Amino acid sequence: MAEQPRIGFIGLGIMGKPMARNLMKAGYSLTVHSRSRGPVDELAKEGATKAGSSKEVAQKSDVIVTMLPDSPDSELVILGKDGILEGASKGLTIIDMSSIAPASSIKIAKACEAKGVDFLDAPVSGGEPKAIDGSLAIMVGGKKKVFDRSVPILQKMGASYVLCGDYGAGNTTKLANQIIVAANIEAVGEALVLAKKAGLDPNVVFEAIKGGLAGSNVMNAKAPMMIAGNFKPGFRIKLHQKDLHNALLTGKDLGVSLPVAGLVQQMISSLMTNGKGESDHSAIANFIEDASKTTISGK
Amino acid sequence: MAEQPRIGFIGLGIMGKPMARNLMKAGYSLTVHSRSRGPVDELAKEGATKAGSSKEVAQKSDVIVTMLPDSPDSELVILGKDGILEGASKGLTIIDMSSIAPASSIKIAKACEAKGVDFLDAPVSGGEPKAIDGSLAIMVGGKKKVFDRSVPILQKMGASYVLCGDYGAGNTTKLANQIIVAANIEAVGEALVLAKKAGLDPNVVFEAIKGGLAGSNVMNAKAPMMIAGNFKPGFRIKLHQKDLHNALLTGKDLGVSLPVAGLVQQMISSLMTNGKGESDHSAIANFIEDASKTTISGK
Amino acid sequence: MAEQPRIGFIGLGIMGKPMARNLMKAGYSLTVHSRSRGPVDELAKEGATKAGSSKEVAQKSDVIVTMLPDSPDSELVILGKDGILEGASKGLTIIDMSSIAPASSIKIAKACEAKGVDFLDAPVSGGEPKAIDGSLAIMVGGKKKVFDRSVPILQKMGASYVLCGDYGAGNTTKLANQIIVAANIEAVGEALVLAKKAGLDPNVVFEAIKGGLAGSNVMNAKAPMMIAGNFKPGFRIKLHQKDLHNALLTGKDLGVSLPVAGLVQQMISSLMTNGKGESDHSAIANFIEDASKTTISGK
Amino acid sequence: MAEQPRIGFIGLGIMGKPMARNLMKAGYSLTVHSRSRGPVDELAKEGATKAGSSKEVAQKSDVIVTMLPDSPDSELVILGKDGILEGASKGLTIIDMSSIAPASSIKIAKACEAKGVDFLDAPVSGGEPKAIDGSLAIMVGGKKKVFDRSVPILQKMGASYVLCGDYGAGNTTKLANQIIVAANIEAVGEALVLAKKAGLDPNVVFEAIKGGLAGSNVMNAKAPMMIAGNFKPGFRIKLHQKDLHNALLTGKDLGVSLPVAGLVQQMISSLMTNGKGESDHSAIANFIEDASKTTISGK
Repeated sequence: MAEQPRIGFIGLGIMGKPMARNLMKAGYSLTVHSRSRGPVDELAKEGATKAGSSKEVAQKSDVIVTMLPDSPDSELVILGKDGILEGASKGLTIIDMSSIAPASSIKIAKACEAKGVDFLDAPVSGGEPKAIDGSLAIMVGGKKKVFDRSVPILQKMGASYVLCGDYGAGNTTKLANQIIVAANIEAVGEALVLAKKAGLDPNVVFEAIKGGLAGSNVMNAKAPMMIAGNFKPGFRIKLHQKDLHNALLTGKDLGVSLPVAGLVQQMISSLMTNGKGESDHSAIANFIEDASKTTISGK
Repeated sequence: MAEQPRIGFIGLGIMGKPMARNLMKAGYSLTVHSRSRGPVDELAKEGATKAGSSKEVAQKSDVIVTMLPDSPDSELVILGKDGILEGASKGLTIIDMSSIAPASSIKIAKACEAKGVDFLDAPVSGGEPKAIDGSLAIMVGGKKKVFDRSVPILQKMGASYVLCGDYGAGNTTKLANQIIVAANIEAVGEALVLAKKAGLDPNVVFEAIKGGLAGSNVMNAKAPMMIAGNFKPGFRIKLHQKDLHNALLTGKDLGVSLPVAGLVQQMISSLMTNGKGESDHSAIANFIEDASKTTISGK
Repeated sequence: MAEQPRIGFIGLGIMGKPMARNLMKAGYSLTVHSRSRGPVDELAKEGATKAGSSKEVAQKSDVIVTMLPDSPDSELVILGKDGILEGASKGLTIIDMSSIAPASSIKIAKACEAKGVDFLDAPVSGGEPKAIDGSLAIMVGGKKKVFDRSVPILQKMGASYVLCGDYGAGNTTKLANQIIVAANIEAVGEALVLAKKAGLDPNVVFEAIKGGLAGSNVMNAKAPMMIAGNFKPGFRIKLHQKDLHNALLTGKDLGVSLPVAGLVQQMISSLMTNGKGESDHSAIANFIEDASKTTISGK
Repeated sequence: MAEQPRIGFIGLGIMGKPMARNLMKAGYSLTVHSRSRGPVDELAKEGATKAGSSKEVAQKSDVIVTMLPDSPDSELVILGKDGILEGASKGLTIIDMSSIAPASSIKIAKACEAKGVDFLDAPVSGGEPKAIDGSLAIMVGGKKKVFDRSVPILQKMGASYVLCGDYGAGNTTKLANQIIVAANIEAVGEALVLAKKAGLDPNVVFEAIKGGLAGSNVMNAKAPMMIAGNFKPGFRIKLHQKDLHNALLTGKDLGVSLPVAGLVQQMISSLMTNGKGESDHSAIANFIEDASKTTISGK
């Protein structure tokens, strides 16, 4: 890697664009590529170099960060036609920050290894606000020496970055995280609906239990949204659906039984088909509200 | 109520005995009664007066605290033959700190009201250690003026005490709390088993996610127990089973759909029949471990 | 028992009235009692003797048939004040045909035994039409000699009568039956909703699979109702709720894990709170339809 | 299609080999291809022509029957390199009798259409015995005229063949079938474990309820296996896992909520990781037996 590595960035969506911008602000020169023209032009105006393909990004970069929707996208961009590996030289480092299936990360990593390309899977937690202010939590899988070498770059995007294990470990950790978050949101929903239908003020219940064993970051962040009936994202249900889907696929492959994750996914399927896919994932509580014919926020 | 009310205490189990002792330490004179002779004699040596029945306790007290296993026990002790109401004079206050079904609290409260007896349901959270050091969290249901008047007594047993609503509201809040705790323990179990079978170190995963949205008091308290394979109680699974049972009965009566609570209860039934009833409730993770043929703590 | 025993009948509801009538048609003399005056007067006009209490029925009968809503009702009528046991002489036989918790049947049976009264639990399957034409399926628990002696009476109400085991076995068998029926209705609902949303004609799917391993009496009886969108009872959801509730209580007491029964009960709670308690239990499919925003019967 | 069409057969596994043999017995000339050499040589000895690739089969056939494990296999054999479409001429008919995801069938069908190739998805039910004696139940999706033209061929393998709808409808119907079968096996398991732990003879319970609403082909076929503790396949759990997986993927794509299918799949994951993947799917009851620490077959 050069003193100041040339960075490529592929995937300039809601998360990717501010992450790329943070790298530019830190002084890195960026070559960017994305499916939509808008954010590419935007970053180009701010000094980034446009590339016509992932392959071209690879030809012009020492390190490439990818931030894509799901496993097939990462596989296409890295392994596919006109993809990164077609343009990669030995010694290139790919940091895939997409939240995808760990098995897909492992598959990509092996293909990279075979070409002398270093790979990290490094999904993030924290959403758009933390992408903007560079304070994401980054969960990393891969080789320690590649991780160590990449810390200066990760630091520009995240407040924390933990090497969780070998290839795929970043995404496995992310999935573990998402199982807990989904189940906990659902449970807070069950609890507050029960309290509401019993005639209690959900806000009083929240205050009464938040300091005890039931207290959690989920409760602190999401109970007020349920109580206000405000499900503006934040983190969209449809993205949580993707994560649970990948968790269940991973569980199936590894022989792990995930009954609550499996059940919550079916609730989310219902919410999506009932038009809630773009709501914040706190709206998982809507399933319990509808099933119980009440709203936590109602009079 | 007298300047310094005479207090009766019924139910000197693992929780009740230290709670009664804290009242005595604070200078109250106590009349005590319990099913087992041992703790009655013990507290008598420390200065308490023994009574032969709940009725007799009532005849000698201005305020009675009850700490009993489940709804039928509270109903028997308060409403039954030789029970509190048989010995109660107008103006007596009953503070039932048992964790029971809210419907049972309401039934008892109405019977008390009819006799001019004041009633609070005031279940606690925190377990034996916090019962001993007087730092329980107390969730209260009942009339505000009775609550206000009882605060000096509650303060001797708890670090926090919140009036959650009318009769039953204390127990409803407790059930809401227990739904969240059970579901969250189960979800942490799913997450760590998934991580473990993927080859990750559960401790690293715990460290990586505990500061994010998945972080919770449950995770901080219970993940280390799962990682150590140490399920010494703490709060016993069989008590959590009772609470979920009461939550589901309450949900059924109120028309609340509680799919995850219902599912976790069936896991707990399995754990109890497989000899885990006396384990700490963190052992809910054992269900996922067994189902997935692994242990979070294993090599 | 006399040559032609004098029969008492308590509980003249939708099921009980035609069952009692079938006994009268067979030539038995009946003494009847019920909460509502209407059916008592009706049967009195047809020749039955009215009694003012269960106790009085017992004083005038050799065999008493009870047909009541749930466990507390059976316990009250048989064990309670002015109940059967207060008026019973040694040698009386009670045939409790109510669908109640097996533990309740056992409790009642023991109390009967202690008074020299014979007891059978004998819940039925088949609904009002089969109660009317005397072709119910009767599942019996109790002693063989009491069963054998009671066959002539059971024959007047049922087309089949099987001694399933000792006290409670009739109701345990009924609960086993009801678990299967509820789960199978739900599964047919999932299957037909899946087919419908995939654009298939549910009727063609029903025809294609009914002869194979998926075929069942549930499918033959209930799929056409789902396809027609006709949920007129038949067997009401609220009664199935009671049976699942008793099944889950029994499972909890015996240490049996019943995850699907537990989950379907929560769906039924939702249906009841959404106004479907009086619908036929085939409307369990409504839960899947609503969750999937479609109807099996729709265009 | 020629008077007597030349038939290709790809996939000579447990099901495919006897199906191919039935076509040969009916007088068709076959060109065969399969991953394992054994069955290819075996059928060659009986008169079939061997082909070195799926492409070659296509070059020598008017109709090709494929019988493959799962969606990726069908896609590879039909759409992949050296696959059927590479060797196909306009007018070829492909009958894919594999049980795969409907979305995969639709994708294949569209690719076929684009090349002027006719396609039917035609999964079967009935297992090895019915594959051998040519009495499978065949569920078909596709165009009516292609179906009508293919009946003479389907008749040689199946006792029934129903056109369920357009492309994918055969596999959607199969998935609907498999949801019901899995849920019903599980429910029979819950019911018999409950009865057993209550002290009843499961065989008596089976006899008592099999004629009523709980009665089903599943119960008739699988309850005796559970009662005997004999889980010799029959239809292997791992194949049912594949089908439920495809059902859940399909449900997710269509916005169908499948809570019971989702839950039973997690039980099957547990069974597979505990070494039961090769057992008959009646062993889904093992999950309930283990969770309840009993066996239906035990003393």
